[in-house]
Amino acid sequence: MKKVKVYVTLRESVLDPQGSAVMGSLHNMGYDEVQDVRIGKFLELQLADAERDVDTAVKEMCEKLLTNTVIEDYRYEVEEAN
Amino acid sequence: MKKVKVYVTLRESVLDPQGSAVMGSLHNMGYDEVQDVRIGKFLELQLADAERDVDTAVKEMCEKLLTNTVIEDYRYEVEEAN
Repeated sequence: MKKVKVYVTLRESVLDPQGSAVMGSLHNMGYDEVQDVRIGKFLELQLADAERDVDTAVKEMCEKLLTNTVIEDYRYEVEEAN
Repeated sequence: MKKVKVYVTLRESVLDPQGSAVMGSLHNMGYDEVQDVRIGKFLELQLADAERDVDTAVKEMCEKLLTNTVIEDYRYEVEEAN
């Protein structure tokens, strides 16, 4: 059994209106030290042991379904789980 | 300047319909080894150096705005950034 953590972030060059809105709210609440907010996704997958290679499978899942590689970057970590 | 990474996850006891939908799609695509998918948020904040304590400020921001502590857990990491 493997636990895979996938972090999906918007590419640097892509505007993040949700992040901008959150930053505006934080400023209104008095947190003037906040200079930038970017919001992405965090996915946790539990994978049973399978014949295919975990890295290959995770990359395929990310590129086919979990992320939009035109506007998003991703990275992942694989941990042994019991 | 500090970079703060905030990971927001649904509590264990809370249903994750978005995660279930993604798991269903992964199964349809042939990734039968996927046993669970949970989807959360990943926020990156840039904070200027301020007088108040970073940990205190980040906890307040998380509890007042960034997360819904009834159904979500959060953790964060603070890094020095230049």
